[in-house]
Amino acid sequence: MLSGKTVAEHNSRESCWIIVHGKAYDVTEFLDEHPGGSKIILKYAGKDATQEYEPIHPPDAITTNLPPEKHLGPVEPDTVEKVVVEITDEEKARQERISNRPPLDEILNLHDFENIAKQVLPEKAWAYYSSAADDEITNRENHAAYHRIWFRPRVLRDVTNVNWSTTILGHKSSMPVYISATALGKLGHPDGEINLTRAAAKHGVIQMIPTLASCSFDEIVDAAQPGQVQFFQLYVNKDRAITKKLVQHAESRGVKGLFITVDAPQLGRREKDMRMKFEAEDPSVVSKSGSQAVDRSQGAARAISSFIDTALKWDDLPWFKSITKMPIILKGVQCWEDALQAYDSGLVAGVVLSNHGGRQLDFARSGIEVLVEVVAKLKEKRGLTFPNEKFQLFVDGGVRRATDVLKAIALGATAVGVGRPFLYSFSAYGTEGVEKAFQILHDEFEMNLRLLGARTLKDIVPEMVDASNLQSHIVVPRDDLYSNNYDSMKYAKLKELKGKL
Amino acid sequence: MLSGKTVAEHNSRESCWIIVHGKAYDVTEFLDEHPGGSKIILKYAGKDATQEYEPIHPPDAITTNLPPEKHLGPVEPDTVEKVVVEITDEEKARQERISNRPPLDEILNLHDFENIAKQVLPEKAWAYYSSAADDEITNRENHAAYHRIWFRPRVLRDVTNVNWSTTILGHKSSMPVYISATALGKLGHPDGEINLTRAAAKHGVIQMIPTLASCSFDEIVDAAQPGQVQFFQLYVNKDRAITKKLVQHAESRGVKGLFITVDAPQLGRREKDMRMKFEAEDPSVVSKSGSQAVDRSQGAARAISSFIDTALKWDDLPWFKSITKMPIILKGVQCWEDALQAYDSGLVAGVVLSNHGGRQLDFARSGIEVLVEVVAKLKEKRGLTFPNEKFQLFVDGGVRRATDVLKAIALGATAVGVGRPFLYSFSAYGTEGVEKAFQILHDEFEMNLRLLGARTLKDIVPEMVDASNLQSHIVVPRDDLYSNNYDSMKYAKLKELKGKL
Amino acid sequence: MLSGKTVAEHNSRESCWIIVHGKAYDVTEFLDEHPGGSKIILKYAGKDATQEYEPIHPPDAITTNLPPEKHLGPVEPDTVEKVVVEITDEEKARQERISNRPPLDEILNLHDFENIAKQVLPEKAWAYYSSAADDEITNRENHAAYHRIWFRPRVLRDVTNVNWSTTILGHKSSMPVYISATALGKLGHPDGEINLTRAAAKHGVIQMIPTLASCSFDEIVDAAQPGQVQFFQLYVNKDRAITKKLVQHAESRGVKGLFITVDAPQLGRREKDMRMKFEAEDPSVVSKSGSQAVDRSQGAARAISSFIDTALKWDDLPWFKSITKMPIILKGVQCWEDALQAYDSGLVAGVVLSNHGGRQLDFARSGIEVLVEVVAKLKEKRGLTFPNEKFQLFVDGGVRRATDVLKAIALGATAVGVGRPFLYSFSAYGTEGVEKAFQILHDEFEMNLRLLGARTLKDIVPEMVDASNLQSHIVVPRDDLYSNNYDSMKYAKLKELKGKL
Amino acid sequence: MLSGKTVAEHNSRESCWIIVHGKAYDVTEFLDEHPGGSKIILKYAGKDATQEYEPIHPPDAITTNLPPEKHLGPVEPDTVEKVVVEITDEEKARQERISNRPPLDEILNLHDFENIAKQVLPEKAWAYYSSAADDEITNRENHAAYHRIWFRPRVLRDVTNVNWSTTILGHKSSMPVYISATALGKLGHPDGEINLTRAAAKHGVIQMIPTLASCSFDEIVDAAQPGQVQFFQLYVNKDRAITKKLVQHAESRGVKGLFITVDAPQLGRREKDMRMKFEAEDPSVVSKSGSQAVDRSQGAARAISSFIDTALKWDDLPWFKSITKMPIILKGVQCWEDALQAYDSGLVAGVVLSNHGGRQLDFARSGIEVLVEVVAKLKEKRGLTFPNEKFQLFVDGGVRRATDVLKAIALGATAVGVGRPFLYSFSAYGTEGVEKAFQILHDEFEMNLRLLGARTLKDIVPEMVDASNLQSHIVVPRDDLYSNNYDSMKYAKLKELKGKL
Repeated sequence: MLSGKTVAEHNSRESCWIIVHGKAYDVTEFLDEHPGGSKIILKYAGKDATQEYEPIHPPDAITTNLPPEKHLGPVEPDTVEKVVVEITDEEKARQERISNRPPLDEILNLHDFENIAKQVLPEKAWAYYSSAADDEITNRENHAAYHRIWFRPRVLRDVTNVNWSTTILGHKSSMPVYISATALGKLGHPDGEINLTRAAAKHGVIQMIPTLASCSFDEIVDAAQPGQVQFFQLYVNKDRAITKKLVQHAESRGVKGLFITVDAPQLGRREKDMRMKFEAEDPSVVSKSGSQAVDRSQGAARAISSFIDTALKWDDLPWFKSITKMPIILKGVQCWEDALQAYDSGLVAGVVLSNHGGRQLDFARSGIEVLVEVVAKLKEKRGLTFPNEKFQLFVDGGVRRATDVLKAIALGATAVGVGRPFLYSFSAYGTEGVEKAFQILHDEFEMNLRLLGARTLKDIVPEMVDASNLQSHIVVPRDDLYSNNYDSMKYAKLKELKGKL
Repeated sequence: MLSGKTVAEHNSRESCWIIVHGKAYDVTEFLDEHPGGSKIILKYAGKDATQEYEPIHPPDAITTNLPPEKHLGPVEPDTVEKVVVEITDEEKARQERISNRPPLDEILNLHDFENIAKQVLPEKAWAYYSSAADDEITNRENHAAYHRIWFRPRVLRDVTNVNWSTTILGHKSSMPVYISATALGKLGHPDGEINLTRAAAKHGVIQMIPTLASCSFDEIVDAAQPGQVQFFQLYVNKDRAITKKLVQHAESRGVKGLFITVDAPQLGRREKDMRMKFEAEDPSVVSKSGSQAVDRSQGAARAISSFIDTALKWDDLPWFKSITKMPIILKGVQCWEDALQAYDSGLVAGVVLSNHGGRQLDFARSGIEVLVEVVAKLKEKRGLTFPNEKFQLFVDGGVRRATDVLKAIALGATAVGVGRPFLYSFSAYGTEGVEKAFQILHDEFEMNLRLLGARTLKDIVPEMVDASNLQSHIVVPRDDLYSNNYDSMKYAKLKELKGKL
Repeated sequence: MLSGKTVAEHNSRESCWIIVHGKAYDVTEFLDEHPGGSKIILKYAGKDATQEYEPIHPPDAITTNLPPEKHLGPVEPDTVEKVVVEITDEEKARQERISNRPPLDEILNLHDFENIAKQVLPEKAWAYYSSAADDEITNRENHAAYHRIWFRPRVLRDVTNVNWSTTILGHKSSMPVYISATALGKLGHPDGEINLTRAAAKHGVIQMIPTLASCSFDEIVDAAQPGQVQFFQLYVNKDRAITKKLVQHAESRGVKGLFITVDAPQLGRREKDMRMKFEAEDPSVVSKSGSQAVDRSQGAARAISSFIDTALKWDDLPWFKSITKMPIILKGVQCWEDALQAYDSGLVAGVVLSNHGGRQLDFARSGIEVLVEVVAKLKEKRGLTFPNEKFQLFVDGGVRRATDVLKAIALGATAVGVGRPFLYSFSAYGTEGVEKAFQILHDEFEMNLRLLGARTLKDIVPEMVDASNLQSHIVVPRDDLYSNNYDSMKYAKLKELKGKL
Repeated sequence: MLSGKTVAEHNSRESCWIIVHGKAYDVTEFLDEHPGGSKIILKYAGKDATQEYEPIHPPDAITTNLPPEKHLGPVEPDTVEKVVVEITDEEKARQERISNRPPLDEILNLHDFENIAKQVLPEKAWAYYSSAADDEITNRENHAAYHRIWFRPRVLRDVTNVNWSTTILGHKSSMPVYISATALGKLGHPDGEINLTRAAAKHGVIQMIPTLASCSFDEIVDAAQPGQVQFFQLYVNKDRAITKKLVQHAESRGVKGLFITVDAPQLGRREKDMRMKFEAEDPSVVSKSGSQAVDRSQGAARAISSFIDTALKWDDLPWFKSITKMPIILKGVQCWEDALQAYDSGLVAGVVLSNHGGRQLDFARSGIEVLVEVVAKLKEKRGLTFPNEKFQLFVDGGVRRATDVLKAIALGATAVGVGRPFLYSFSAYGTEGVEKAFQILHDEFEMNLRLLGARTLKDIVPEMVDASNLQSHIVVPRDDLYSNNYDSMKYAKLKELKGKL
């Protein structure tokens, strides 16, 4: 058994040991790979980091990420000095904001959750969740695209009883919405993704479990109620043995669908997240290191994703089919050609038309725009109509209102994935927040079905929307960095004004 | 006879009695259903609420809404304690603004009324009047759509005598505008809808009486001059006996047209209105109740509208035809398919192409846009031309200038409904305000007819407008909630600036 | 001879005499018709108003506007009390701004003149010059329309010698630009329109003399150099004898073209101008008068234009042809149908495609947009090509750069009228300002011809511009009044923030 | 040998001598031609100007610009008084900003360099670099045009190994980007263009040497590594002997391509640059001189470019072909007609579709828009496909991201020129800045190729982009000068507010 004193000697960048859950680990070589930056680890060099570690990481994160030889074994508890976490003024202000959140009754829509989350999340968590690729044009286009679609509602239909439940991959869902996979849930709330599991159970909504969850896969599945439907989102590992184990474990635990991410051979440059890294580092250290220094600038996204296989290809699909009976869905298809290829392969049950929440390729089009082209071309080339039980189309990205969802349904989607809004809901209010988010959506669905003159989702037909301007990329989200740099034209000034300006 | 003392004992949420016009009522169970929230009632628990009640409610509101067993009977006047209404600082400031309104001569256009109303109305009244559905996109699109229509005026025509009077459903109107129905007029002015009646009489404009007026139907009809034309807007009650009584009473009182609202099987989510409810409640109470509490968050709109029939359908039209000889017009048609069905039914005299002032389905298209499609399709399918005496088309929503009206006329409308602007006119200046609003419109009509080269409305032909961009939903009203949440991109900062920002 | 004392007794609204240039006038009945409002006259009731009168009015304004019986005759000079014009703080600040104007060398473009004029003009003058109809949408569209036209320049052509002079109605012009008629020049500068005459002489530019000039017609013609070409803009009087006299006098004085305004049977509502009237009035008086008062709210524009004939029509053209040999041009044509009718009449030498600087019908299209339709239709219907010597097309409105002019030339215009920019030039710097404005245009023409690869205007062909988006009314100038009134959506607020906001 | 005392006597505008590198020059007649204005020279009248001269000018600038008779010969060193350059407060603040630049690691994209450069450059340098023609509409459109092009990425392709190197005019380039020519590099950094040469060597990028470099041509070539590829940008001199010497010298020094600028027979009006001249001059002097003064208002751009031949034409191309074997490329082609003529001439190896960074003709279209038309027409007329080895198409202007470059490649460009961003990179951080800029681009290329599903540039096909909105000039960069001048509409105001506003 190690003594706390021995550990305490390894308190520098040259040799850095830390204690987590009573065991010591040598993290010296891991410092520069740590998604959260080295600085936060160095703060606990030679000390007990449990208190800081616990709320953010899956329990097995450290054992999984460090090779066995770096696991130094248990430390004698009495010999370890207590670490007093000092609370910064900024953190105090944040805690005050948390205690001043408005009561849940005052939350009227999904935007409200985002607004509260923005104020109560730690800066880094907000940066990670909200950031997107490059200039974040696609990120905003995802939302804006829905605003180019307008309704053609019908009147004088008996809409006393309206019903917006549906079936996704053969499973009942209380609404045409599923919880899409998003990473690192514990950054927002200590219970992480389990908040979603609990709320989904109550409301009959399907949850897609992310590969990069903060909670472990089993924790999330264990939190489910009997009969609760869960899907699994997969980042394919370069080491296919690991992938096989993950997939088969998921199937054995009852997961009902496998969503393979195909739009992320490499994770995008998310500059808000990258910039946060610098803020967190000690500027003097960074400054000294200059351009010769190790590149620690990639943000959380890249750090946690180096395992993803850049070589994943169409030819790999039969192998997936061979290792699981779960229906396979490709998540991240972005043009009709790939949707057609997916259909023609006969191996997949559907595709998610998605650009990864704008976090990958900037200037990728919105899922809803791609939906229109996919529906048209698969009808033209293969005579398909949508929604289609045999080959289901999903979209995600930018959804904030039930009206957004209903537009996608009218255009042929089976259901719509919603990610960040639920993340913000539990970041702001935990499980209750997600439940309230579902309640809001239910309320919006009920009202909007009535106002559209539709009793069920089957009544939401293409003629109910005017999407003729959807492909117009004429008004484009503002390019903030460019605009900030541009100096506007100056006019002739009065003489006396010169001095003043 | 009850004594004031007895009433005074019922002064809590558990047992709440109030006195109105000398009679006591048990409102305990009504507290949570009150459109204006429970807080304002509790303030008068056990007391005389007449002074607060009177300016807002129709005289029979309390007797209609409470079941007979809650009518406790007369109270001995001398035993009732006087209630001194305390005037808040906010209210004092508002009163000062009222006394500082500019003279009517300085009001140059309908926008000016809205601006003054915004400043002199109680916050709740402004929220109720101005609010619209969801993100209020349709609300603003209603106005913006007119800006995508441009004129092609003609010159060198003798326009010495110009005349913009017309005929609506066979009745003379001094302008191609009628007063559209809007609810709760007393929120804006103690005389409520009667302001409109009086001004309409002077100017030969037709008023549509709303089902949800603050003044009673008979008060409004009584205020009319002999021969003055009024229409009636109908929300159809689940209890058809009530509806029948209303309609036949209206007809017996001389009403000339029945406008059945078909776009409101359920009233929309109007979040500005809903949010106002929270502001008005005691935050501590709301806070305690948490998410378990009764849902009092629906705003005035829903509270007053629970009686509306969600089952109203095309098959009900013959019944309406059987109970009245008034011409029937469907208010709230939003696509050519429904306009055609209305025409083909042979039962209705016209339709109002309307989205309820943007207060129902967000992303419904503007009435003026729907007009173009209806005119084109009814010509194509049934050979109709517009304006058409036999099947009249009306539009409402977003109108602020005579030019807006003339665009609708050019495109085939018989007349245009104007709601909020007149509401704001009397909220700011009472009856005189509405008269001034009419004067302004007359002045604008005279000038614009001359500038268009048109002597009468018949000269306002389709070739006089270019509406080719009307269907372009490329520039869409700003999504405020989304934009507020979005953090713009940040650039590299100078070191010294870090501390400062 | 009257004594000053007698005059001094008529110092009230009931009886108001003033002295101008040594003669007394009874203006009691004229008070409410005075374009500048009654207040400014009442300030001089019973006194000598010459000092205030002189810089603004044509010398014969008072004698023309007052019936002979109100001309009271000469006043004994010694008996008249001196009027000390008090200078307000606002006026002092304005005078200081005037003395701080930047030197002319720092003026780089026509926008600069406008900017300086805005700062050095009296508020009323700026309001009169800059105002336009209704929401001023057309006013801004005039400029914006040019921005939807882009160039397709040619390279590798010898552009050492470039020449942008041209011929307008058979007369040489040093550039394809003429000075368009604008009213009330003395509001901006004591020399009024004569500033334009002098600068035009030096630079070989043609001036169009306005009917409503501040200088008298003869003053302007007298100021011209021998051989200098001037046109005359005509508002047709209800009394055709007056019109005949005006036209024949103009012809006799050597004017070379008659531009008959056809877009102003009534002058537009220019609200900035109208609002200025209220500011100038004593609020207490206005307040008392209420809505019963005489309508003095029409602004300068309407007051000076009541003589204009609302009955002017195509059938009047032969009469004009019979009274003058000057070529006749119709100013204010706004669609191809009227341009064709003008051509087919055989009576006119051309048309100005103009909406009166946005001051008449709001939502009239820009002249440059109308040009494209006129050129296309007159080719289709009559086989004409443009520019065309026999039937010349002009446009005006919104021009600020030589590039704007060259776009019009490429699309078929013979020349372009420029009004406000020259008005602002002399308002800011007198005659020298206008000369500098011409120099700037010359400099821009030289450079842009070279950069377009054109040696003369003949080389500026339609293929050099891409005007395919000109008809797109999708991005429309902001509706300021509407936008000011609209309350944006609010989101959920933290509790502690409530008190603060 | 002159004595310092003698020189010191010539210290006025009438006779102005200065000393540079130990030699005296009579610059009296050159004062008004000096690109940087006369004021800065007069400051050193009679004194040693070396310290000020050196960092900005090419070593031979003074000897080249002054006729031999003004070269007065060496001055006795001891007799020259030392000049103490006083540092203004503004300059001190700038120096502080320089020392507070963030470390290079914090620079995440090319926008960041521009932002830092804007803060650390002398005002004049920023004005010269950033300015563009007229209202700078084209300048901003260059960037905005890329935002109307969206991606259609492909998934499930093995993108483990991606390669974005290419071949430009037969020479290897590590990326499809070359450094485009920009003038006066020493304004930004003492090493001027050599910063680019050094960084280009390390990263295998081709540099285009500008005619108007601050470093002499030979300095730049000398700084190159063996085998490093450089191109030469040529402004054609009216004196063809000089041009011939330049071209043949370039070829003899190993330059691999001759880019003849064809879009600048005269340099554009760049008002930001012109305005800076006034700021720099002593206002009192300028003021006195008034409009009679010599026109010193043309800014640096025009002053340094008076030698450029306005007569350059297609017929000159054979002569160029006769004096060099370097491939000839025309830089500044702006429509398909000229691209076709270039191709048909058989004399040129390609064209750069460019509008000179928006610095010449305002409202010229973006290079990327012209590319689409050129590719379509050269296919239609000559059956060409692009990219094409025999006739290469380049574009420049507005590029800030690798995604911009990849859009151009997809549409048929061989490579893209980038100018200002590299200028800003060395202005902010010297050679290291440019290197970092290349690193950023490499990183972006790697990621984006993977996300597009492309292993090499050959996989970047036209189907990967949606450019259908590229020609839409509906949303146009804001016209700042016009917008600043426009007064928005005002509404009726409460009385009490009048005094306050």
